[in-house]
Amino acid sequence: MLNGYHAAMDLTDLTIAGFQKYISDRYERVDRQRGTPKTFLWFIEEIGELATALNSDDRANLEEEFADVIAWLCTLANINDIDLAAAIARKYLGESPPEGHK
Amino acid sequence: MLNGYHAAMDLTDLTIAGFQKYISDRYERVDRQRGTPKTFLWFIEEIGELATALNSDDRANLEEEFADVIAWLCTLANINDIDLAAAIARKYLGESPPEGHK
Repeated sequence: MLNGYHAAMDLTDLTIAGFQKYISDRYERVDRQRGTPKTFLWFIEEIGELATALNSDDRANLEEEFADVIAWLCTLANINDIDLAAAIARKYLGESPPEGHK
Repeated sequence: MLNGYHAAMDLTDLTIAGFQKYISDRYERVDRQRGTPKTFLWFIEEIGELATALNSDDRANLEEEFADVIAWLCTLANINDIDLAAAIARKYLGESPPEGHK
């Protein structure tokens, strides 16, 4: 589904599992060699860039930083054998999702 | 699709847009009142909990912390009018996605 993506693709079709697998297919071998602690440093660098972007007026950059954070979160999940869609479903989509501020 | 979720649901169907909207429907009114800076504090608290979980052997807690981080990332995106699926598609699913370490 993610191969041959074009702008015309219906974005409502982009699944969490599909994107996590896409990140795995493209990057996981190197990500696993780097390991969790160093990967977490990269992740936090992206969090910092998101903070900077939230503080600016550059909408295109803000969008890009959100994408980078979710990509690095997928990487951390991949190298720790976490299924993000399953994690979300168990915490948020069950019988009693968190009330109020989660 | 997200209403009436049960464990039997095919998790490969969980879309990024669908989960972002679910978080919007449940929490966005309060999230917008809180605003971006205070919401970022909540988000970073969850990042810290993810770090703690990555450092422990509690797999169930680790899974939960991943879910919380992505939920708060959806919240930050919602109150800043960012479409996460579109952001991901533009950065990662176009003709020239990032090479190597993203």
